[in-house]
Amino acid sequence: MTTKKLGRQTVALAHPPSVAGHANVVGKKEGEGPLADSFDQINQDDSFGEKTWEKAETAMQKLALSSALDKAGLSASALDYILAGDLLNQCIGSGFAVRGQDVPFFGLYGACSTMAESLSLAALLLDGGFATHAAAITSSHFCSAERQYRTPLEYGGQRPPTAQWTVTGAGCVILSREGPGPYITHVTTGKIVDKGIQDANNMGAAMAPAAYDTIQAHFRDTGRRPSDYDLIVTGDLGSLGKEILLDLFHRDGIEFKNLEDCGVLIYDAQTQDVHCGGSGCGCSAAVLTGFLLNGMKQGRWRHLLFCGTGALLSPTSTLQGESIPSICHAVAISTEQ
Amino acid sequence: MTTKKLGRQTVALAHPPSVAGHANVVGKKEGEGPLADSFDQINQDDSFGEKTWEKAETAMQKLALSSALDKAGLSASALDYILAGDLLNQCIGSGFAVRGQDVPFFGLYGACSTMAESLSLAALLLDGGFATHAAAITSSHFCSAERQYRTPLEYGGQRPPTAQWTVTGAGCVILSREGPGPYITHVTTGKIVDKGIQDANNMGAAMAPAAYDTIQAHFRDTGRRPSDYDLIVTGDLGSLGKEILLDLFHRDGIEFKNLEDCGVLIYDAQTQDVHCGGSGCGCSAAVLTGFLLNGMKQGRWRHLLFCGTGALLSPTSTLQGESIPSICHAVAISTEQ
Repeated sequence: MTTKKLGRQTVALAHPPSVAGHANVVGKKEGEGPLADSFDQINQDDSFGEKTWEKAETAMQKLALSSALDKAGLSASALDYILAGDLLNQCIGSGFAVRGQDVPFFGLYGACSTMAESLSLAALLLDGGFATHAAAITSSHFCSAERQYRTPLEYGGQRPPTAQWTVTGAGCVILSREGPGPYITHVTTGKIVDKGIQDANNMGAAMAPAAYDTIQAHFRDTGRRPSDYDLIVTGDLGSLGKEILLDLFHRDGIEFKNLEDCGVLIYDAQTQDVHCGGSGCGCSAAVLTGFLLNGMKQGRWRHLLFCGTGALLSPTSTLQGESIPSICHAVAISTEQ
Repeated sequence: MTTKKLGRQTVALAHPPSVAGHANVVGKKEGEGPLADSFDQINQDDSFGEKTWEKAETAMQKLALSSALDKAGLSASALDYILAGDLLNQCIGSGFAVRGQDVPFFGLYGACSTMAESLSLAALLLDGGFATHAAAITSSHFCSAERQYRTPLEYGGQRPPTAQWTVTGAGCVILSREGPGPYITHVTTGKIVDKGIQDANNMGAAMAPAAYDTIQAHFRDTGRRPSDYDLIVTGDLGSLGKEILLDLFHRDGIEFKNLEDCGVLIYDAQTQDVHCGGSGCGCSAAVLTGFLLNGMKQGRWRHLLFCGTGALLSPTSTLQGESIPSICHAVAISTEQ
């Protein structure tokens, strides 16, 4: 085992990369939610001026990237790598957004964990000395996700109480080898966990055990405790998934006072008719690149554990009677190096 | 810029990882082709004992992984990371294959470039000191690809002359920080290139400019020449794509005498009715993990440039009138460190 590796799953970065820029773009509904103030761009037209929902998703990723580059004071030519992925079949949101950027590209698929996965790999590439700047990008769109995973919007299908609402949004983080922070200090890479949940309308229940597994691994590998973080934020477990995660830790005698979930934070459950909350790659991406990183810069939190969660199913696997393999990647972000 | 980076796109690995094990599994048609002797397992039943083609693909990836681990004399618990992806929607071939392996997982999407992409990232993670062993895996299956990208087999659709035949196969490479080689010495990461080809039945034409771009970048970044390699192998351009690639270099006054393509090598064009040759993630994966790495170990070649090519389209992007963004990642493999 090499010196940088702590335990089985965690890397302590020897030279923690700095967040040089971060930006997001969201749709109308997200702009009506409690985190409205933290978004860089709220578009009242969810088509983003494009003819299809898929092209709208590409447009969002491009906007998030250019805005993050602007904030970082960099041009795309400064990027050594772009790492991106999304929920669309063959990740076309990312492929078409990165086309024309003239930057080396690694395409990823981590479902809704993609913001954490792309951030993990970008941080490792920088720490390994292979890059000075890298961008991590992801997106989701309610309308493209509904028709791909469920039914076309026009069908008007009923959503069960355990369902979540796919966030229309994209987020981008630019990492730099040098800078004033916040810094990526640890990367804990998840294993696939599948406890047999087969209900594709109950992603929170499917993903909560993966979050439990990775958060446990992070604390085991680093010797840290929950109280070492000001905030531990899961990706998009939603309200039911969050409750399951807290229950799983409760059985171990661990009570979290500082655990939040991006899917719970992004909408107002009372007024926005989202059932269990937000989901989609864009959910944790928009919350991280707005509410969370803005909050760190404003001094609200110093130490954050960002735990992106993803359900690695497809409509085909569900039709074939399969359960839902899930994953969670955790990234520790700190204002101190 | 850090010292390990050569030019914009290439990393020269300071501590080149060694190929500790490599294995593949293919279907009946591949086993009837010219490379039959180089495959570890040829299954006469393309269902691999499973009820669906998608589950067959998962079964192939599991077989390739366990066989590569056996050859490396390792158990899965020795792996720090698995990096895998495939062509199926939401990469379920990989997700379900890695489920139960209890190994940290990074899911990738690089279309048919996935063997080169996973090998690139695995090599960088090892060279960066984040891992001692990592596995790179990918697969494709003719039957799952046909029904997902084109039409169900039962429909009996005609294939145009420019079409390629998706390889039924999976390949796995296990990299180790120490070992007798062959070694991964350089990683050249591709940019997305799109020259406007819209015909989803002419992938070779769409991908050839991406291969041209990355191979050029490799030589520019490293100062090497084509003659520094015993063999330069593209992923799955097929016969037409290979011809276009040679034409593009011919315009620059460069004539390759040592360029082959996995899609051309894997089938007998005269007798196997594959039109322009093989394609799919499994194509370059099965050729690399059989014919190429076996050949290096037998002393047939000392220096190899493996250039995986991928077309980042989806059936939806084609229906929406989009052209085909393509990518190529190059990995230099040598018997010397």
